[in-house]
Amino acid sequence: MRTPICELLGIELPLLAFSHCRDVVAAVTNAGGLGVLGAASHTPEQLEHELRWIDDNVAGRPYGVDLIAPATYAGKGEGRDTVGLWDLIPDGHRKFVDELLAAHGVEPHDPPSAGQRHRPRLTEEHARECLDIAFAHPISLIANALGVPPAYMVERGKSAGVAVAALVGTKAHAVRQVEAGVDIIVAQGSEAGGHVGEVSTMVLVPEVVDAVRQVSAGGPPVPVLAAGGIVNGAQMAAALALGAAGVWTGSVWLTCEEAETAPATKAKFVAAGSSDTVRSRSRTGKPSRQLRSAWTDAWEDAAAPPALPMPVQSLLSEPALRRVDRLAESGHEGARELATYFVGQGVGLMNRVRPAREVVYTMAEEFAAAVERLGTLLDED
Amino acid sequence: MRTPICELLGIELPLLAFSHCRDVVAAVTNAGGLGVLGAASHTPEQLEHELRWIDDNVAGRPYGVDLIAPATYAGKGEGRDTVGLWDLIPDGHRKFVDELLAAHGVEPHDPPSAGQRHRPRLTEEHARECLDIAFAHPISLIANALGVPPAYMVERGKSAGVAVAALVGTKAHAVRQVEAGVDIIVAQGSEAGGHVGEVSTMVLVPEVVDAVRQVSAGGPPVPVLAAGGIVNGAQMAAALALGAAGVWTGSVWLTCEEAETAPATKAKFVAAGSSDTVRSRSRTGKPSRQLRSAWTDAWEDAAAPPALPMPVQSLLSEPALRRVDRLAESGHEGARELATYFVGQGVGLMNRVRPAREVVYTMAEEFAAAVERLGTLLDED
Repeated sequence: MRTPICELLGIELPLLAFSHCRDVVAAVTNAGGLGVLGAASHTPEQLEHELRWIDDNVAGRPYGVDLIAPATYAGKGEGRDTVGLWDLIPDGHRKFVDELLAAHGVEPHDPPSAGQRHRPRLTEEHARECLDIAFAHPISLIANALGVPPAYMVERGKSAGVAVAALVGTKAHAVRQVEAGVDIIVAQGSEAGGHVGEVSTMVLVPEVVDAVRQVSAGGPPVPVLAAGGIVNGAQMAAALALGAAGVWTGSVWLTCEEAETAPATKAKFVAAGSSDTVRSRSRTGKPSRQLRSAWTDAWEDAAAPPALPMPVQSLLSEPALRRVDRLAESGHEGARELATYFVGQGVGLMNRVRPAREVVYTMAEEFAAAVERLGTLLDED
Repeated sequence: MRTPICELLGIELPLLAFSHCRDVVAAVTNAGGLGVLGAASHTPEQLEHELRWIDDNVAGRPYGVDLIAPATYAGKGEGRDTVGLWDLIPDGHRKFVDELLAAHGVEPHDPPSAGQRHRPRLTEEHARECLDIAFAHPISLIANALGVPPAYMVERGKSAGVAVAALVGTKAHAVRQVEAGVDIIVAQGSEAGGHVGEVSTMVLVPEVVDAVRQVSAGGPPVPVLAAGGIVNGAQMAAALALGAAGVWTGSVWLTCEEAETAPATKAKFVAAGSSDTVRSRSRTGKPSRQLRSAWTDAWEDAAAPPALPMPVQSLLSEPALRRVDRLAESGHEGARELATYFVGQGVGLMNRVRPAREVVYTMAEEFAAAVERLGTLLDED
């Protein structure tokens, strides 16, 4: 099952696995795919720690790092730390969150104190620092999860011989990415977890493959990975039928044995159907897909305040939701109702907790079975 | 490329084509697929006329009819005609439409006069009458586009040996349909045109295939067709990789040479990208996907009145949009801005006007090419 992306990245299976959990990254890489560590929510110190662990556990096999290096965000260029950013949150928003938590029996969260003063994530400064750390390790891929990678990321990739990938939700963005020098396009359908656009995988992938082929005229086209809703090998075959060079997966790893997903949320994921997600600005300020919960319902209500711009909304939502996760784990009923996390519609197909390695092998088997079944249809003509 | 659905329906290609245009229905049937006439907006007299024409033009080859037999709707059991239903439209809604039209230089539409008094569509009475007509013709399939087919439809199909199909947007609905005795499930993803749910084709199809297999335990599973976003043969291969027995298509026929699509709207479809659709209640009262236009934008605005229930919203929107279509054809600028019609995200891949027959043959070739390309990947292992 080798495609051009396998040659480019030195992997056996055209399967990339995005995860915030180092164990998943190493397990997928060791099983023949490519694990990509999502580092947007790591501090630089945490990232260094995780990458060192991965280096010690993949025996030189290829892996990647995914960052969010946003082009525009609130407070850009103002040098605000987390305490300074907190001042950008209107009183009405703080009150809304406090009341939402209180209605579920959860204490309000305090504003960050001087002791919690640090450089905010989802900013250029944070991305640059993480990039320095990533490039000090033997990475094979660096990805930008939101928008065109900044020139400093593309140039760094080129000079180090590291493939630069970027996620897109529209054809127009794919063309801009190729023109900016990106090596791998991840066409991510609206059914994906996390930051997503509105076009589905079934339509977006062939549309992007065609557009990238046109804009690459002259040279070999930039490979396109399909993302969004893909959690099994039949879907992987479907993605390759659509013209993708491989698949980029995320949600499926959240219910792995190794995953760091909060236990109450993992249990919700296993029980959820595909209709149980919502695309909402309430977590990061940009539209992202996540499990529907009392938290997302409240923000979708007509009476809710509008989400704040990135990275301010995260400052409001993340500490509250981390507190919720801790309480949910101890059985707190209100916290269980609020608990949520990024996940795609593929959650409806994620019904068992398995080791990541088993997921990879099963996907490879399902892929082969689907392709053989399709071949039989042609043979019968 | 024969699948169980080919045996069941007596067709060569597992390709079903929904269209309101008899020429498309006949062309697809004659090219080896199965044309399905969408009759929800026909009067009984029109339906009889169209089916007679189809019988004269398909030489006994199989075709189907698609109705909307809604279980619940405004005015049910009250025996209101179109004039009586008009009374259910609040003044504020009439004023909103009149002002929207006026803002684009289009005259307001008058309430239906006594001369336009007829039985409203999208009601049980209309569906029953159309069903009588359909079953007087040699149809091979009868489909219900919205909800569980009523018992009178299922029983009629069983006794006449006509396959009963139904469209679903969730796993739970699919199970209910199978339990109600439906012979073919059409799992329609959110990217489809017309009435749609929220789960994408890539996720919904495997989820429904699995659920239907479980609920059919003991006998052969009810075949599942994939719908939503499918306009080419690579996507058809993808759908079959996902476990579908075939595909149900709709949007792709709207830009065929034969299509009755209003010319200004057809031109908009050819120019549109996949991001140019919107899922909105503004046309029929239930969420349906259509091309974004000044009409849909106005209804999506926070100041717009909420859509009315089916079939009242159609009484408000259809006459206005038919007037818009006529004006748009004559070059009226404001009408061109308002003009819209049901279409799926696949519109982004519909970039040429071709005969329906050519679309069928091209899809078959693309399907074979995609399957062969996938097979090559396995061979190289």
